[in-house]
Amino acid sequence: MILPDWIRTYDKSLLSNDLIAGIIVAVVLVPQSMAYGLLAGLPPQVALYSSVLPLILYAAFGSSRTLAVGPVGLMSLMTGAALLELGITEPVAMIAAAHTLALLVGVILLAMRLARLGSIINFLSHPVISGFVSASAIIIALNQFKHLFALDIPRGLPAHEILYVLASQLGNSNITTAALGFGSLLVLWFFKSPLLHLLKSLHFGEKITQLISRSGPLAVVTIGILLASLFSLDTRFNVSVIGAIPEGLPSLLIPNIDTGLITQLLPKALLIALIGYLESVSIAKSMASQKRQKINSDQELVGLGAANIASAISGGYPVAGGFGRSMVNFTAGAESPLASLFTALLVAATLVLITPVFFFLPKAVLGAIIILAVLPLVDFTTFLHAWHYDRTDAAAMALTFFTVLIVDVEIGIITGVAISIALYLHRSSQPHIAIVGQLGNTEHYRNVDRHKVKTFDHILAIRVDENLYFANTNYLEDTLMRLVADNTAIRHVLFICSSISFIDTSALESLDNIHYRLEKAGIKFHLAEVKGPVMDRLNKTSFIKKVGVENIYLSTHQAMAALNRDEQK
Amino acid sequence: MILPDWIRTYDKSLLSNDLIAGIIVAVVLVPQSMAYGLLAGLPPQVALYSSVLPLILYAAFGSSRTLAVGPVGLMSLMTGAALLELGITEPVAMIAAAHTLALLVGVILLAMRLARLGSIINFLSHPVISGFVSASAIIIALNQFKHLFALDIPRGLPAHEILYVLASQLGNSNITTAALGFGSLLVLWFFKSPLLHLLKSLHFGEKITQLISRSGPLAVVTIGILLASLFSLDTRFNVSVIGAIPEGLPSLLIPNIDTGLITQLLPKALLIALIGYLESVSIAKSMASQKRQKINSDQELVGLGAANIASAISGGYPVAGGFGRSMVNFTAGAESPLASLFTALLVAATLVLITPVFFFLPKAVLGAIIILAVLPLVDFTTFLHAWHYDRTDAAAMALTFFTVLIVDVEIGIITGVAISIALYLHRSSQPHIAIVGQLGNTEHYRNVDRHKVKTFDHILAIRVDENLYFANTNYLEDTLMRLVADNTAIRHVLFICSSISFIDTSALESLDNIHYRLEKAGIKFHLAEVKGPVMDRLNKTSFIKKVGVENIYLSTHQAMAALNRDEQK
Repeated sequence: MILPDWIRTYDKSLLSNDLIAGIIVAVVLVPQSMAYGLLAGLPPQVALYSSVLPLILYAAFGSSRTLAVGPVGLMSLMTGAALLELGITEPVAMIAAAHTLALLVGVILLAMRLARLGSIINFLSHPVISGFVSASAIIIALNQFKHLFALDIPRGLPAHEILYVLASQLGNSNITTAALGFGSLLVLWFFKSPLLHLLKSLHFGEKITQLISRSGPLAVVTIGILLASLFSLDTRFNVSVIGAIPEGLPSLLIPNIDTGLITQLLPKALLIALIGYLESVSIAKSMASQKRQKINSDQELVGLGAANIASAISGGYPVAGGFGRSMVNFTAGAESPLASLFTALLVAATLVLITPVFFFLPKAVLGAIIILAVLPLVDFTTFLHAWHYDRTDAAAMALTFFTVLIVDVEIGIITGVAISIALYLHRSSQPHIAIVGQLGNTEHYRNVDRHKVKTFDHILAIRVDENLYFANTNYLEDTLMRLVADNTAIRHVLFICSSISFIDTSALESLDNIHYRLEKAGIKFHLAEVKGPVMDRLNKTSFIKKVGVENIYLSTHQAMAALNRDEQK
Repeated sequence: MILPDWIRTYDKSLLSNDLIAGIIVAVVLVPQSMAYGLLAGLPPQVALYSSVLPLILYAAFGSSRTLAVGPVGLMSLMTGAALLELGITEPVAMIAAAHTLALLVGVILLAMRLARLGSIINFLSHPVISGFVSASAIIIALNQFKHLFALDIPRGLPAHEILYVLASQLGNSNITTAALGFGSLLVLWFFKSPLLHLLKSLHFGEKITQLISRSGPLAVVTIGILLASLFSLDTRFNVSVIGAIPEGLPSLLIPNIDTGLITQLLPKALLIALIGYLESVSIAKSMASQKRQKINSDQELVGLGAANIASAISGGYPVAGGFGRSMVNFTAGAESPLASLFTALLVAATLVLITPVFFFLPKAVLGAIIILAVLPLVDFTTFLHAWHYDRTDAAAMALTFFTVLIVDVEIGIITGVAISIALYLHRSSQPHIAIVGQLGNTEHYRNVDRHKVKTFDHILAIRVDENLYFANTNYLEDTLMRLVADNTAIRHVLFICSSISFIDTSALESLDNIHYRLEKAGIKFHLAEVKGPVMDRLNKTSFIKKVGVENIYLSTHQAMAALNRDEQK
């Protein structure tokens, strides 16, 4: 095996940076991953197991130096919804199915690498992703209110139903739990913002400021555990706590690969794999570009695939690069994947040494941690930008957002992709067609509607600003024929191909048809500015023989000059 | 109601043309529609009922003057397959469901008109349509061999299974039936080709030649009925005949609109409606363009919608414009929809007067009529053209063809559409990006790979030959950054937008990112030849302020001159 760049060039002075970042991420990761486990309906140890081996595998195979892999909100939500939808609700069966799901996700990612399908995520437009992520964050946050109020709200409900159940059951909430939950929210918010500013204004060092301000989750977990155990909140005030977590490292296992289960899980795994990959690559790219490092999206498939398979065989569930945690890692100064190795070691140490401590950890505290972790993902500025720039993109974003919110996460993302592809196809099916004329005495020809240009009655010079393909040939044919029918003086049609870089078989047929119809009407058809690759193809067709090579011009100006000379003869 | 053009301008001298065309079409339509009824698994009267009222309604509302509406092969095949797939096999239930299907098809077409979705058929590429139609024609023809050999082959089998069953059961075939069937094929072929040439060489009139050569179906039907009744072929030689057809005109009825049935039929109806619409519009357009008439594809939705609803309430099943029959109508000299009215009256007269005559009509004769009617639809030249011009289009066509043939008609057309859209997206996601240079001392700039052009070390002038949208922004960003990284002399990037007619929100973000990354690397970003509508939009963004209006040039030449001046200072 060839050692990756970062190992060969590793500078020992970076070690302390990586160590500190690793510690900070571990401090965030331990409570956060237990919380995400709850979100998926899985016991906390499954989430903790997902935070050891996968991190090590990603560090070995991934291409990002700072991506923090582990349980993430979106995949936990989708995993929980998938199991629920398939009717897998019995705890042991759920855990087994979660392992299988992680295995499938891993295999799918590796298969995508082999099939070179990494570019598939390009078909998710930014507005759709943004709408999807915002709505998912809201759903995840809403799902936490059942822990904050100690209410019994089923998993997998859409946003409006969660709100309805919350409102109607609010009277049954447990006051102590709610006090713990909202108290935690307050403390977390204090660490995140006022404390950070305070430390900065007191001129504490950057590292220590980071370490302290990121310790909000650690603080609320500690306080929560202390309060719950000192006052026996679980037995005396009925506060839900995590309970017993098995001690020690996960034992390796072979996931259930029963074909029936795999067939059921496969479509879900496909979507979870795509979303996880998308989330990880976008985070990794945004961090890498700030440090002028490269992300290889093919290599990411390998890294994430290996991490998920590692999760499957070490008792975990699907993992990906988490947004919040990666940012913590990045801003805490992580320089290499070594930081993730330190994180993994610390989580392992937690599992070996201190799981009994978590017995008294109130679930409301975990709920508060998740809410503060996902809220930054709710992003309305992208919507505002899209609204000002392109209403249809904004509409696609809104549609995705509301579908995720009030119907379903999976249906939401599928709707978003379908709508953005449909919008693009719709746009390109009605291409911009400009009639052009000469700009002053220059060799430039521009749109008659936008510039003061000179035109000639007997020449219709049009430029189509789109590649010609099956979906826009009818529009082109209809528009051109209408223009010709409206103006009986026309004796030449000059078709300017400067914006055309491919013509498919349907469009070629259509051009042939246009040529035939113009010929019948006594009008000559000419081409100008045909691009090299397009001309190479056209040269093989009978269409070009019918048009005649003498009617194909390098530039519009040459064509116009020739057609005018022709006329004067 | 405003009278259509053709009524207001009708010239009485055209009446005889319409009358003769109407008669010829009726002669073809009566046996053909009974045959298509068999193909759908419906009794012959259902198909005959579909050939009266729908023709009148289409004549009133459609926009084509010569489209011959009625039962068609493809829709009959799809109707039969749909009923079979839904487990509707009991005759009375099948007929009722067929009425409901026609009603749904009609309502869907009218709804498409209201939603202005007529242009949806543009998304079927010509190669895909061609592959679909060819394969369907083969399936339809293969399905007739059970009638020709009197074998019991279930409906709805894919091509290879039909062939297998045919081959394995061939020993059980009825020799008399086979003789009748193949005899009919021979007679039909004789009428179609040798007789036509004979009549032409004997200088018969055009009209009479048409009338005689189109009477092949009438001739074989007459001979078949005579032979079967004279020699009691049905009882003595076990030859399958049509049997009793109820006499008289259809009575009007209200189709079953049970919600359960409608829910089941809806997806099928959607596909049948689209295919019927597509088939009708393409035939109508090809005829209209030969006579310089216009087809209004929105009006076609109304005409076909009304025709299908008429079919539903008069005991029929889904109808559309038939290829063969319309060509017969057109070449027989039909001048207006009056021809269709005559056809409808003749079919009505047939129903009132001579249905008992059809009792002895052998099914093998009908099978032979269909085979000769659909074989001209099998078209391999389109495939050869596509193969020479564009291999991917040819591959899409072949995939559609074989999916229809060996899997299923519906899955075939869906595969075809999906694959052509995917191919287009794939193409546009990897746009052609050219580095350009100056052509001699002209103001023209061309691809450095294709022309001998002058370039400058400190300027990278690139032209992207595609609109910028979510699926190609990553490719653009990666390519541009690679070009810049490869050449450290570059101090200016000139981005030539002559081929770009829209930039979506994702691409705008990407351009912003490119600008930011170039700036960090000390490289200036310039734009040239930005089109009017694109500039209008960009002017609203912060991106354009960052680039600076002074860095946006009308032409590439102006930009290059300015950047060179800048350099010399």
